[in-house]
Amino acid sequence: MRFGVIGAGRIGKIHAANVAARPDCKVAYVADVDAAAAAALAKSTGATVSAIDAIMSSNAVDAVAICAPTDMHADLIEQAARAGKAIFCEKPIALDVERIRRCLDVVAKTAAPLMVGFNRRFDPNFAALQARIAAGAIGEVEIVTITSRDPSPPPISYVARSGGLYRDMMIHDFDMARFLLGEEPIAISAMGSALVDKAIGEAGDVDSAVVVMETKSGKLAQISNSRRATYGYDQRIEAHGAKGMLSAGNLRETTVEFAGANGIVGDKILNFFLERYALAYRLELDTFVEAVKAGRKPSPSGEDGLAANRLADAAYLSWREKRRVTLA
Amino acid sequence: MRFGVIGAGRIGKIHAANVAARPDCKVAYVADVDAAAAAALAKSTGATVSAIDAIMSSNAVDAVAICAPTDMHADLIEQAARAGKAIFCEKPIALDVERIRRCLDVVAKTAAPLMVGFNRRFDPNFAALQARIAAGAIGEVEIVTITSRDPSPPPISYVARSGGLYRDMMIHDFDMARFLLGEEPIAISAMGSALVDKAIGEAGDVDSAVVVMETKSGKLAQISNSRRATYGYDQRIEAHGAKGMLSAGNLRETTVEFAGANGIVGDKILNFFLERYALAYRLELDTFVEAVKAGRKPSPSGEDGLAANRLADAAYLSWREKRRVTLA
Amino acid sequence: MRFGVIGAGRIGKIHAANVAARPDCKVAYVADVDAAAAAALAKSTGATVSAIDAIMSSNAVDAVAICAPTDMHADLIEQAARAGKAIFCEKPIALDVERIRRCLDVVAKTAAPLMVGFNRRFDPNFAALQARIAAGAIGEVEIVTITSRDPSPPPISYVARSGGLYRDMMIHDFDMARFLLGEEPIAISAMGSALVDKAIGEAGDVDSAVVVMETKSGKLAQISNSRRATYGYDQRIEAHGAKGMLSAGNLRETTVEFAGANGIVGDKILNFFLERYALAYRLELDTFVEAVKAGRKPSPSGEDGLAANRLADAAYLSWREKRRVTLA
Amino acid sequence: MRFGVIGAGRIGKIHAANVAARPDCKVAYVADVDAAAAAALAKSTGATVSAIDAIMSSNAVDAVAICAPTDMHADLIEQAARAGKAIFCEKPIALDVERIRRCLDVVAKTAAPLMVGFNRRFDPNFAALQARIAAGAIGEVEIVTITSRDPSPPPISYVARSGGLYRDMMIHDFDMARFLLGEEPIAISAMGSALVDKAIGEAGDVDSAVVVMETKSGKLAQISNSRRATYGYDQRIEAHGAKGMLSAGNLRETTVEFAGANGIVGDKILNFFLERYALAYRLELDTFVEAVKAGRKPSPSGEDGLAANRLADAAYLSWREKRRVTLA
Repeated sequence: MRFGVIGAGRIGKIHAANVAARPDCKVAYVADVDAAAAAALAKSTGATVSAIDAIMSSNAVDAVAICAPTDMHADLIEQAARAGKAIFCEKPIALDVERIRRCLDVVAKTAAPLMVGFNRRFDPNFAALQARIAAGAIGEVEIVTITSRDPSPPPISYVARSGGLYRDMMIHDFDMARFLLGEEPIAISAMGSALVDKAIGEAGDVDSAVVVMETKSGKLAQISNSRRATYGYDQRIEAHGAKGMLSAGNLRETTVEFAGANGIVGDKILNFFLERYALAYRLELDTFVEAVKAGRKPSPSGEDGLAANRLADAAYLSWREKRRVTLA
Repeated sequence: MRFGVIGAGRIGKIHAANVAARPDCKVAYVADVDAAAAAALAKSTGATVSAIDAIMSSNAVDAVAICAPTDMHADLIEQAARAGKAIFCEKPIALDVERIRRCLDVVAKTAAPLMVGFNRRFDPNFAALQARIAAGAIGEVEIVTITSRDPSPPPISYVARSGGLYRDMMIHDFDMARFLLGEEPIAISAMGSALVDKAIGEAGDVDSAVVVMETKSGKLAQISNSRRATYGYDQRIEAHGAKGMLSAGNLRETTVEFAGANGIVGDKILNFFLERYALAYRLELDTFVEAVKAGRKPSPSGEDGLAANRLADAAYLSWREKRRVTLA
Repeated sequence: MRFGVIGAGRIGKIHAANVAARPDCKVAYVADVDAAAAAALAKSTGATVSAIDAIMSSNAVDAVAICAPTDMHADLIEQAARAGKAIFCEKPIALDVERIRRCLDVVAKTAAPLMVGFNRRFDPNFAALQARIAAGAIGEVEIVTITSRDPSPPPISYVARSGGLYRDMMIHDFDMARFLLGEEPIAISAMGSALVDKAIGEAGDVDSAVVVMETKSGKLAQISNSRRATYGYDQRIEAHGAKGMLSAGNLRETTVEFAGANGIVGDKILNFFLERYALAYRLELDTFVEAVKAGRKPSPSGEDGLAANRLADAAYLSWREKRRVTLA
Repeated sequence: MRFGVIGAGRIGKIHAANVAARPDCKVAYVADVDAAAAAALAKSTGATVSAIDAIMSSNAVDAVAICAPTDMHADLIEQAARAGKAIFCEKPIALDVERIRRCLDVVAKTAAPLMVGFNRRFDPNFAALQARIAAGAIGEVEIVTITSRDPSPPPISYVARSGGLYRDMMIHDFDMARFLLGEEPIAISAMGSALVDKAIGEAGDVDSAVVVMETKSGKLAQISNSRRATYGYDQRIEAHGAKGMLSAGNLRETTVEFAGANGIVGDKILNFFLERYALAYRLELDTFVEAVKAGRKPSPSGEDGLAANRLADAAYLSWREKRRVTLA
């Protein structure tokens, strides 16, 4: 499977490396407006630098990995779909839900395989937890609890264009909640504050947020986000059900513990998503490749991307208007 | 300090035993409509069976421990306050907030010492966590997360008269949230379902519930409750702040772990509140006695009781009317 | 059951309080050469100060708790046995194995119930571990591993008269090894050093020690001792068997953990035996009382005391002569 | 750096893959008596199949990775040393200590870089623990405790030619003990039994073993081995010192825990050395390459290999002759 990788930034490098590491795949082309970045990534993966249009129209490309800025995602997906490529796209498809819908219409017409990059579903810990729910380990899921905190806030410039915490950060947790609940939330109530950095508040966003959701059958979910955690990249999940509770916790740098006069000191947790989710990114790419090769619709799908964005919009609305929001 | 214990049921026995165990205290009298229960408790604590009015008017009684049914609490507090007794009363003061207010007015006029039995503040784990927050260990508190689940649901008859989950169960968590936040919540949004037992739903209550709250300065809290946890009495707290996170977890029956072909199996957590909070009840009583002896106003106070009930009412309203509720 | 408590020191106080707390028992008399200590303990337990001979000959005494200095134990046991009392005696019966044998001969002739105070068998964690071995949870025990470290070394004066580390400290671990192995060790090899305090070495003893033992059927045990652990009173056990491993660990002061920039910091472990084994002492006394009331031979018995001392002697010999020692 | 890999079995594949994954290294040639195995490994690493003598004399080979059967190691090391290659050799150099000495004499004369494959030193957990000892975290090391258990016993045929448990399995622990103690053991006492499989005992070996060792300055070490652990590949270390204790534990398959009616069930530990030490093998190879490129003597050295074998011999002697053995 020959890939065109569009975007040679941080996430483009991860996906390109994972493609290159598979014996049955190849990074054929890399495109980026930053010529140096494109050249470097092409070199490290044995690819050729090219332009987006050339990649899209090349017969030597079977799949594209869209790792460009968010505002290009929907256009690129449509272009790739029309060109008959299999598409792996980083989340979100777009910030605007209507734009996502139009994009998915195009994809539906072309029947192009599309997978959206919710990498956390592929974290071996979270994937195992979900698999055990699916196998009935806790019976019906009743309450899902997701904790997700970044080690430190992004630059204000990022906050301004990212759509804000609910859309750029909590979107992962909305997807995870759906993944674990196995049902769509029908109502949401969000609270949030700028406690970490006043400038985030002045930019019209929050850096600390909690959300509750419920599904039609009454299942409940709660999410907690912060843009700062002194102890590292805090990524935890609990699912409580009729037969028990499953939880998946953080990964520590090592298992070393020091017992001394001040207590028992365990190692720090992994500090950021590139470390914590390195394996998840690889398994995500593997899943995409295997699905495309087998002719299966990849999951998480474009519809999963849409659903997460709708929840993010609803959360943002709930926070801004200080009210509970119902989803149609 | 000579106590009159009013109510010889499960909780009355606990408090009476803790009074009797102190060398500086004595259970002088026990009253209960169930004569056999009163006699048994009087015998085991070296006390005399008496009647409520007699206890209230006795010069040989310095303090009363009100462990009678909830609907008697407010009347008994007023009677005891007018009689000049120090008052320890189980939560809640009343189910009706206006009744609580009138009761506290009487207490205020008499200046009687009044402590409300939020026992969890005295759990050594939670008390240590709060003390470390107060000492600045995590800087400003930003997000408080409370998980509280009972091993199994109460009888429907109890649900009918208890005021429901938000008022009989989550009230402890509202008090804990206030204790840890150090600020009053000004808004609340509650969701809840009857997932454990349909009969609870038919009785107009929920058995699974999640709540989010915020304070004026933007601090956030989330609470999760269930009337059933197959793994025992789940009682956990997290407080996330500018400098780090403090957490306090469950207590296991023993430290024994079995490593075998199916994984590493740790012991169950303590199964119910009598075991989990046995020490908390003792420390609570000690705190009451020490405060009264020293002439300090006991804490948690009647006002703490009122505040927790107001939050419970707001949660119930939020759940019933499916909206976010603002507290004046 | 009416007790005479002989010795009003640290351990005497513990046992006396546990006797006094039982509704079916009473501390009738207390004896100690330190009159003030005897008076204080008598007062706190509702007893009367008396003399050893008077206690032994009193018809108002059913049982004696021997908490006097070690060099008095054997004489007191014999005196009590001849007086027909049930006997609870702190370990060891004597430092000299021949003296223990003679003492047990007297006990055997009188058929007096005798229990030796190996309190750790009654620690709920270790007791549960042993019960699970007995119930077959790990199949045949193959390797027992015991770690036992004190927070800080005793005064040199104590080392001089205690018989040394193998006899005053590791004796508990020898008893625990026998308790868990269910077989007698037939060979032992000990190594030890004075690493904590040179003065201990100069006094002819060690403060750090490791031992290996084997039984006739080839079961293995290893013990590790240190007179100093900066992190508290380290008391751990592992039992490895054909079907898995059971372990029992330390108890922490609270469950509170702090996650911060330097890692995850858990609370210290309980710092000394009075805290760690408070419950074990109570259950030990309960076991003695129940056995005597039921007419059962109490366990651990005098023979258990003898066996532990024999192992301690063998360990000391192994260390001093730098050789493996075989037990007859 | 161009490698000749000698031996295309399980361990040869690991080292070859790690060589191939480095951009600055290349597997040039692979040799194995099993032509199919050699061909498969050559194919997967982009190498050419060759013969040992050809590899040794090739100017296109800078280093050899010796992954052949143990009885060929010493000859191959000598041949490679004389041919001026850098040498990475799996442990042990030979089963016979005199043969190891002669081999190291040859290496010393040629000044060829030689590293012996004690992979556990490179496990990130154990490496971090050792680094913290070296940085003074616990002050002087006093007691090192190593637990090492395989999930299941090897075939009897392996036991017969491996030199036995002390030489093929515990040798890793002897190296680890030396690594952590920072001093040479001067005495050892070993006990062992065939508890897992009688056939192992009939073959003259043990499958369960414990050892104690001491150094000149009195530092102590204890090792526990079993050929079977139902719960997986048990690999743990503790180092107790003047300022505290460091420990490093097992790795679990995931962080998922299930809380249910039977307790809290954590995931199994990693089941075998290929999983547990995959990263250690990579870091080991990296260390070898970096040392050779920088002109530094690689560590662990041939002398480390010799020292571990001497301890294994002493342990075997101690076990067989039932006595403490002193090392010169």
